[in-house]
Amino acid sequence: MAVYTDLSDEDLAGLIAAYDLGQPLALKGIAEGVENSNFLLETEAGRFILTIFEKRTKRADLPFFMDVMERLAAKGVPAPRPMRTRAGGLLSDVHGKACAIITFLTGVSPKRPNAAQCRAIGVKLAEMHVALADFPGARANALSIDAWGPLIWPRRALAGELRPGLADAVEADLAVVQKSWPHGLPQGVIHADLFPDNTLFLGDEAKGLIDFYFACTDALAYDLAVCLNAWCFEPRGAFNLTKGQALIGGYEGVRKLSADEREALPLLARGAALRFFATRLADWAETPPGALVRPKDPLEYADKLGFHRSAKGVGDYGG
Amino acid sequence: MAVYTDLSDEDLAGLIAAYDLGQPLALKGIAEGVENSNFLLETEAGRFILTIFEKRTKRADLPFFMDVMERLAAKGVPAPRPMRTRAGGLLSDVHGKACAIITFLTGVSPKRPNAAQCRAIGVKLAEMHVALADFPGARANALSIDAWGPLIWPRRALAGELRPGLADAVEADLAVVQKSWPHGLPQGVIHADLFPDNTLFLGDEAKGLIDFYFACTDALAYDLAVCLNAWCFEPRGAFNLTKGQALIGGYEGVRKLSADEREALPLLARGAALRFFATRLADWAETPPGALVRPKDPLEYADKLGFHRSAKGVGDYGG
Repeated sequence: MAVYTDLSDEDLAGLIAAYDLGQPLALKGIAEGVENSNFLLETEAGRFILTIFEKRTKRADLPFFMDVMERLAAKGVPAPRPMRTRAGGLLSDVHGKACAIITFLTGVSPKRPNAAQCRAIGVKLAEMHVALADFPGARANALSIDAWGPLIWPRRALAGELRPGLADAVEADLAVVQKSWPHGLPQGVIHADLFPDNTLFLGDEAKGLIDFYFACTDALAYDLAVCLNAWCFEPRGAFNLTKGQALIGGYEGVRKLSADEREALPLLARGAALRFFATRLADWAETPPGALVRPKDPLEYADKLGFHRSAKGVGDYGG
Repeated sequence: MAVYTDLSDEDLAGLIAAYDLGQPLALKGIAEGVENSNFLLETEAGRFILTIFEKRTKRADLPFFMDVMERLAAKGVPAPRPMRTRAGGLLSDVHGKACAIITFLTGVSPKRPNAAQCRAIGVKLAEMHVALADFPGARANALSIDAWGPLIWPRRALAGELRPGLADAVEADLAVVQKSWPHGLPQGVIHADLFPDNTLFLGDEAKGLIDFYFACTDALAYDLAVCLNAWCFEPRGAFNLTKGQALIGGYEGVRKLSADEREALPLLARGAALRFFATRLADWAETPPGALVRPKDPLEYADKLGFHRSAKGVGDYGG
């Protein structure tokens, strides 16, 4: 929620000259994302998001993200389309930092998605997987199962302060998923962070999937498991089966899950909850008291883990 | 540079329903202003800025600001126009805070304004003064001459740390302006904070005057004096006479300065520099080291005071 790199009208004019976008008409820093600086940019050619990549996004990963977005937009999946410079590049430089100009998508992020919105995002997620089926690029998932323990173990004490007994419970979850984590499932490019915040809706219609900066190569069903966590829970860890049915039903209307994927889904969902618990716990630990930006609550994912522990099979998720 | 109040899609739908603006199409928090929460709002009726007023803006002052903007927009001065609710109000409430929806203006704020832009802003400033000549509302200038000393005195030590001898020099400035501050000059509604940041240009054409939340009733020539400080200096306190001539010339093309105003201008400019030195010093003192938002440098205004001390008359400003 900040703009880390200041961009003057002169910087902007220099940057825009490399593109075929006409003259700049407006530039506003937008409070979106915590990793990068984002600006709403209007030019004679339309409206765009200008992103300046700050240090937490690896430069070497940017071409992968850009190629994914470009491919999706070309195939009609509503992802932002990165603009190419006159020289054909998808990335530029400003103040020694990489930047990109992508199309602005209309829509509003749903705070409490309804079942119709869950179904719509299931459809879009599957369309995304299908559109990227023959995508040539690859990027390892830096936040996959091996990353969770090292984020959680050093913060056992904090977990215990947040809720007595939580550290032991979460380590038991870790042991379970590590023992049985499925490895032969269909792989492909996944979004890996498709929370409601990263989608844009007009009413119940999904108009945009945004923020592809966690996209990576992993099990497609894991992406669905992330969405089950992000879209289908009510407060205090209550799973909304109707929303789960809508999400999975929407997904399967486009891409059928295999028997292996269906069987693995509860474990993948438990793993996905651990992934977000782990990063939220780490962010919580690193945020000084009284900071302007309040980190997201790790306990939300501790609650969701409670449901995953009790789930008997894919039917409990609406599949 | 922050969004302090979170606004969900449901909050937004409830708010927009009170206006005749159609359905919301997009909402982005923008990193603009340090006092309030601002969002770029797109609806079926166009693009707007939605401002939620945080505690530093007094509720009782808001109708004045709204009326000023509405009057200016109606008279063709490029200020944002506040939208009226179906019930006719210019203000609404969200999360117990006052908010307003004003038109979005295109343009980019100049970082280093050129002489043509200084002339253009002189013209717009005078047009604003003329358009508000019969404005019925009034608001005292809370940051007028009596406010500067109480901001500076308790921070003498800090001023001395910033630059040896600065505290004494500034107190001498204060004594000079307090002794001779002009009182019978033509009064009216002034913007009081018309920095380049608060203007929008396309090329050399001024397309927008924004951020009227310091507007008040005061000497019109004081507003010009603020602009001389904000628009016509080069780094390290060097006054650019060409820009001064352009700014004053642009202003006088629309509204002629009286002999009293011309004579008072150097003192008003010195006072305006003290006003910004005082608030910047206070902001500097209140910002913890390492804060995300770096306050503006008080020494920029210490440098400008150096020029004002040496100025012999209005001719030194280009008048």
